Amino acid sequence: MALESLRYQRGSLEVLNQRLLPGQLRYERVGDVERAWGAIRDMEVRGAPAIALVGCLSLAVELAGGSGPTEDLGALEEFVGQRLGVLLGARPTAVNMAREAQRLRAFVRTRVETPGVTPQQLRESIIEYIEGLLEKDRGDNRSIGEHGARHILQGVPGGGPVTLLTHCNTGTLATAGYGTALAVVVGADRVAANGDVANKIGTFQLAVVARHLRVPFYVAAPSSSCDPSLPGGHLIPIEERPKAELTHLGGVLLADPEVDVWNPAFDVTPHELITGGIITEWGVFAPQELRQALEERGGN
Amino acid sequence: MALESLRYQRGSLEVLNQRLLPGQLRYERVGDVERAWGAIRDMEVRGAPAIALVGCLSLAVELAGGSGPTEDLGALEEFVGQRLGVLLGARPTAVNMAREAQRLRAFVRTRVETPGVTPQQLRESIIEYIEGLLEKDRGDNRSIGEHGARHILQGVPGGGPVTLLTHCNTGTLATAGYGTALAVVVGADRVAANGDVANKIGTFQLAVVARHLRVPFYVAAPSSSCDPSLPGGHLIPIEERPKAELTHLGGVLLADPEVDVWNPAFDVTPHELITGGIITEWGVFAPQELRQALEERGGN
Repeated sequence: MALESLRYQRGSLEVLNQRLLPGQLRYERVGDVERAWGAIRDMEVRGAPAIALVGCLSLAVELAGGSGPTEDLGALEEFVGQRLGVLLGARPTAVNMAREAQRLRAFVRTRVETPGVTPQQLRESIIEYIEGLLEKDRGDNRSIGEHGARHILQGVPGGGPVTLLTHCNTGTLATAGYGTALAVVVGADRVAANGDVANKIGTFQLAVVARHLRVPFYVAAPSSSCDPSLPGGHLIPIEERPKAELTHLGGVLLADPEVDVWNPAFDVTPHELITGGIITEWGVFAPQELRQALEERGGN
Repeated sequence: MALESLRYQRGSLEVLNQRLLPGQLRYERVGDVERAWGAIRDMEVRGAPAIALVGCLSLAVELAGGSGPTEDLGALEEFVGQRLGVLLGARPTAVNMAREAQRLRAFVRTRVETPGVTPQQLRESIIEYIEGLLEKDRGDNRSIGEHGARHILQGVPGGGPVTLLTHCNTGTLATAGYGTALAVVVGADRVAANGDVANKIGTFQLAVVARHLRVPFYVAAPSSSCDPSLPGGHLIPIEERPKAELTHLGGVLLADPEVDVWNPAFDVTPHELITGGIITEWGVFAPQELRQALEERGGN
């Protein structure tokens, strides 16, 4: 049974606290933007697309609950911009939150400039816009799973069965079969224009081993995780997590107190190691085809 | 401060229970061969040379305490052989216990055949022989550390500083410095005649990445871990550990109860990936030089 990472209905958002897994299965209410910021920074919610969704949905919950100015279009626009600004500071590596904030601001601007729109209509349209992101995310996940499964099975004599190795949260692709052929599939926190990929630390190592063993290596990522403004992976900011994540378990010190720790959360896999392809909601692309695909669809 | 994995004086053996680390630092009394067998199988004591030492020392403790026949040379020889047989079944991958048992049996045979030896003298000489193994192990560890450090520093402009990455218990080599050059150093549970190495699962992956990054990859192993009777690493038996080691933490189920688990404790790194060398108590050898070194010294 697949776990839902979040539960949303208008005016209410709950996220699965992933820090308590697997010992406890607890959904926690996220009633405002500050609570979303905390849940993202403390890694109760993880994975680049989920971070952006929880951030935006927390704003929708605030708006549905009546927060912010009600009488003035410009004041409401400013309120939305300020709330999005709060969310941007939580974690630096994933690009999705920044991109969704930028798009949402542009959407609000367009609505504000539309003649005859009332503050209540603006508020309603922002909530609907954000709810559309949730729908799009679910559809994109299905598409990525379908494109990925089809592409991987094409390379297998007789169409399967297939063994997949995954690393970190790759979600929907875990729908594939089980057997003798092998692929390695990882997610992505940010993909640069040349196809270099930042993902959970350890990904680079898997990609090197996959090439050594001549196993195709795939990255599954919605186009919203692609950042064509960065020419190469060396420009992706890599978040460094606290030392205590490695030296402590359940609050108990496990290491020499003098030990020095470098704890990067991500590494960068150069595009030449992505031998299978980059699986997006539009299809599977070789890393060098990615820039053109992004430009043609103009989604970014 | 280095931890002692075992504490021995004649008639008394205590081993550090490594299953309780790092939460608890507890030495447990090993008063007989059955207790040693359990400590090895349950991984309270780990690492190929330590397993053989704890096994033999537990027999020395029994003998010092007066166990076994006292009146008859042949009966005492048989007793020793039977006790060694118990120890051999605990873990299959490391070769050291089997080899030490074989040598000890040969030593006992020679003593039994020596004219005029009394059962009490035979008992005393077995205890001394086993105590000699402990001394030899300590000396070999120092030699391995010295040879390894010298060889690694030779390749570094200006003689250092050096950054070492280690994997699993490699003990004494952790004495080297810290800085900018890099080597990867692992231990070994068994080394085949062609230089293929069985070691803690994950070693192969590190060796592949080291070659990709042009970082020298070393294996540190006493000659007693080398098994010239096996032509290649594919013949090394690989122990499979219980499923619960991956599905449970502290007795709590963390995984889907239906999940299938394959839990090999070791992997085999082919000799062509050991680009730095194999560090023994005699010096550092390229994998293809190992067979000749073993033959010349006849130690195996």
